Amino acid sequence: MRGKKKIGFVPTMGAFHEGHLSLLRAAQRACDYQVVSLFVNPLQFGPEEDFDRYPRDLPRDRAWALANHVDLLFLPKADEIVPVDLETFVSVESLSRRWEGASRPQHFRGVATIVAKLFQIVRPDIAYFGQKDYQQATIIRQMVRDLYFDIKIKVMPTLREKDGLAKSSRNALLSHEDRAAATVLYRALCSVQQSIRAGTTDCHLLKKGIESIFKKEPRAQLDYAAFCDPNRLEPIRHVTGQAVLLLAAKVGSVRLIDNLLVRPHSAWRNAR
Amino acid sequence: MRGKKKIGFVPTMGAFHEGHLSLLRAAQRACDYQVVSLFVNPLQFGPEEDFDRYPRDLPRDRAWALANHVDLLFLPKADEIVPVDLETFVSVESLSRRWEGASRPQHFRGVATIVAKLFQIVRPDIAYFGQKDYQQATIIRQMVRDLYFDIKIKVMPTLREKDGLAKSSRNALLSHEDRAAATVLYRALCSVQQSIRAGTTDCHLLKKGIESIFKKEPRAQLDYAAFCDPNRLEPIRHVTGQAVLLLAAKVGSVRLIDNLLVRPHSAWRNAR
Repeated sequence: MRGKKKIGFVPTMGAFHEGHLSLLRAAQRACDYQVVSLFVNPLQFGPEEDFDRYPRDLPRDRAWALANHVDLLFLPKADEIVPVDLETFVSVESLSRRWEGASRPQHFRGVATIVAKLFQIVRPDIAYFGQKDYQQATIIRQMVRDLYFDIKIKVMPTLREKDGLAKSSRNALLSHEDRAAATVLYRALCSVQQSIRAGTTDCHLLKKGIESIFKKEPRAQLDYAAFCDPNRLEPIRHVTGQAVLLLAAKVGSVRLIDNLLVRPHSAWRNAR
Repeated sequence: MRGKKKIGFVPTMGAFHEGHLSLLRAAQRACDYQVVSLFVNPLQFGPEEDFDRYPRDLPRDRAWALANHVDLLFLPKADEIVPVDLETFVSVESLSRRWEGASRPQHFRGVATIVAKLFQIVRPDIAYFGQKDYQQATIIRQMVRDLYFDIKIKVMPTLREKDGLAKSSRNALLSHEDRAAATVLYRALCSVQQSIRAGTTDCHLLKKGIESIFKKEPRAQLDYAAFCDPNRLEPIRHVTGQAVLLLAAKVGSVRLIDNLLVRPHSAWRNAR
């Protein structure tokens, strides 16, 4: 198809949900041919992490791909992509050490390496990522720029359940009680949104608000709430322009992340 | 030219000599269009190394490229290839830690990163490297395999001066006396060749012979003499099949490397 058709690529770890569907739909709108890869990447899980219990349901995912008119469902074998003698790794240095990278030391090296390999195999025109994994999308953008991949990266908005919980394959791992508690991430984001609209720009104050919301939810443990510049992901002290709030928490035994793009109320007014 | 002509690529750091010419001639024999890049890669030099005094003579190199019918001499600017916000690095792990990598910790990460970038820009059909930098060529082969570069790697034999010294841009940095002493590397390789032909296969014994040759040359300091399997570069104890001897030494203030592919005399006979 290469060179004849515009190729859209959605790299996934399977356990498809509406978040994946929105990426696929975007690819279908913009491209002539869609490739969805399904590969639960062992390199992006730490030794103590949930690789073994990560949700897998290949028959269901195959049916989903068929029903949603995926042109090519790419199912590489683990020992093809990560052979025992794999020696070459791609890392996006300082961006990978912060936030999720601080909690998960080899995580983004694993992501970047496998996405680079998939990009080299598929060589798409456009690749689609979800905003839910904001730091991941930022790292992929940087890798594409640094290694001159001839690929356009599109980041699609986070889809949410009715109660606001960001759609994620890992939500399936939550117990009934933890599932209810997991809305704490979204509630924290909304409260920050409101505080900023009310004129608060001090990140320290905004963070205090987040912490007090988490304190009322004993099933959830906040890992970090970080206000950052949206490209370098360096921490900021005041929301003076476009910024991103990155949030990570453990709910029961499941680690969840979410994020929000914010800008000060005055900037909203100026933008009108 | 891409897709229409077969593109040959010779990545270099300039200061062209006959070694480069032999790579170019091989590209001209096999390809329709030749790209030679000239980029003194800052990432492959350690902080205490000879980046600043590495030989540079752009007018001479331009004339050389013209005289030798290079189709495209690619002269990227340092801040285009290594911008201040470069974050992405390619490393070929265990192969890069041994031998030259042990003496030059970030060297091969710098090589692999820049060669990956040049490969992505040029996207050649065939790329040419010299056997003189044996470990480098091995690492590039591994990177190409691991990251699915659609590029064939050709490694061309080392060219030598009349007295056996391997051609290298760094030879220009040798003083008159050190230039004479530098043949010690070739003399060591030849003596190993002879010992193996005489039936010696014990690498410890062969190494003793190398050390005694270096002891007679006070201007030269042996860094390592390593008998290895030719692909993984892991040390071996006996030359029982195809093997490579890697040699590194400092002559005066200049670090030189050389190598020799060897196999036991019996294997030679069996091969006939």
